[in-house]
Amino acid sequence: MRKLPLHPGARGLEDDCAILEIGSETLILTHDSMAEGTHWLPDADPYDIAWKLVASNLSDLASKGAEPIGVLLSHALGRGDDRFVEGLHAILAKYDVPLLGGDTIKADGPRTLGLTAIGRASHIPVPARSWARIGDNVYVTGTLGRAMLGFEGDPAHLEAYNRPVPRLSEGQALALHVGAMMDISDGLLLDAFRMATASEVTLSIDSSKVPVAAPQRRSECLRWGDDYELLFTLPSEVSPPVNCTRIGSVESQGFAPLMLDGNPIVNAEGLGYQH
Amino acid sequence: MRKLPLHPGARGLEDDCAILEIGSETLILTHDSMAEGTHWLPDADPYDIAWKLVASNLSDLASKGAEPIGVLLSHALGRGDDRFVEGLHAILAKYDVPLLGGDTIKADGPRTLGLTAIGRASHIPVPARSWARIGDNVYVTGTLGRAMLGFEGDPAHLEAYNRPVPRLSEGQALALHVGAMMDISDGLLLDAFRMATASEVTLSIDSSKVPVAAPQRRSECLRWGDDYELLFTLPSEVSPPVNCTRIGSVESQGFAPLMLDGNPIVNAEGLGYQH
Repeated sequence: MRKLPLHPGARGLEDDCAILEIGSETLILTHDSMAEGTHWLPDADPYDIAWKLVASNLSDLASKGAEPIGVLLSHALGRGDDRFVEGLHAILAKYDVPLLGGDTIKADGPRTLGLTAIGRASHIPVPARSWARIGDNVYVTGTLGRAMLGFEGDPAHLEAYNRPVPRLSEGQALALHVGAMMDISDGLLLDAFRMATASEVTLSIDSSKVPVAAPQRRSECLRWGDDYELLFTLPSEVSPPVNCTRIGSVESQGFAPLMLDGNPIVNAEGLGYQH
Repeated sequence: MRKLPLHPGARGLEDDCAILEIGSETLILTHDSMAEGTHWLPDADPYDIAWKLVASNLSDLASKGAEPIGVLLSHALGRGDDRFVEGLHAILAKYDVPLLGGDTIKADGPRTLGLTAIGRASHIPVPARSWARIGDNVYVTGTLGRAMLGFEGDPAHLEAYNRPVPRLSEGQALALHVGAMMDISDGLLLDAFRMATASEVTLSIDSSKVPVAAPQRRSECLRWGDDYELLFTLPSEVSPPVNCTRIGSVESQGFAPLMLDGNPIVNAEGLGYQH
């Protein structure tokens, strides 16, 4: 795909969103697709499928500090469409994001759904995953592993798995201050590895500082995806303007992109959800 | 879907594109999806699938007189991906449309692909399908039925079916002058019916004037989709600035939205490709 004619705002397809300057405004564009069997089980509640489809895209906008403008939906007709629309209505209303358009088609077999979300940058320059600077502190919002427990059926965390919260207000509050920012939909360690690689630095993370929902399964909580929290760096003199936890620091590029409790992690295998 | 929170630019989901005013610019947004089995046969050349996916979206932009800015692709991995990227490269290069981003996922079974295209309005107000005015003339670009013959295997028309040409330059040249405009991807008669209904007028069409690729099968040519030509209306004093054919006129709303050779067509059933 990288050999295709790319828009400069595509950032080489290395980032989660595209940046589009239109007159004096800067738009943020993202598209996430989800497939039955890959992203949800056949017996999932269509309400939750709609919610997660929108939330995952809004989370990408959040990682850029963007305010959502609207979404376009690609919908394949099927079982539970009324329930799907109900979930869609709920999350669009909750985050005050209108539907701009899209397409509804007939399709055979397991369904693939897609959503394009469009937002307006709240701060220029737009945060990138490649802007972690040596000496910055590394932070994460929220508590990790909640989606994992919800997926396993823990009633206290079902909501975290089925109806994740995009960190839109946090992203907007942070955009002015961050170095690097990204959402950690694929797991903290994998996404930290990617941030370090893109920034050409080493991220040193103290796993004991990461807030986790299941302390006895800390390692899994750091690798499980679907939490949709924000990972970001701030210069050491800046106090974070949102609720978050400092989990490490940015060091000069060393032997490995990631140092976890002092141990070098040299490749991304086994760090998170690769897809 | 119409009960969802809609953006004012969604035009009530009655149009092919959404209109988004950003500062002093006006953007046009559209999303078309295509599914294996519904929109292409399993043995189709992936090059052509990519071409048609992009062309159908660019055709929607053409119907608004928009200049393309870029596209976001939703791609499910599968057979012939290299060939798909080859076709994608060809059409993006041909129309000078860069890739902005998108998502690539794993999916089981028949694949669904989607594309979001973004363009810039070349003229304000942006043409709508609802602006046919009494006394206007009705025009169509090109020759209809070529995609039908190509689908049937006629070597002279394979290209028309597999690699349709979005009427971008025609759309831009027309945007300043038209009344109503839309592309006729679902067949001339069905789309004319929709234009008449949206405009609250009657479109009177003389079928003998419509340029068709198979005169002995005129009726089919008027109903077959996939030609991606433009249907539009112009005030009677305006000469069309593009190659096209006058096929009828706009009359006050009568008994039926469509008059075909003097016969009223009261409902859309059997007029074209409903999906």
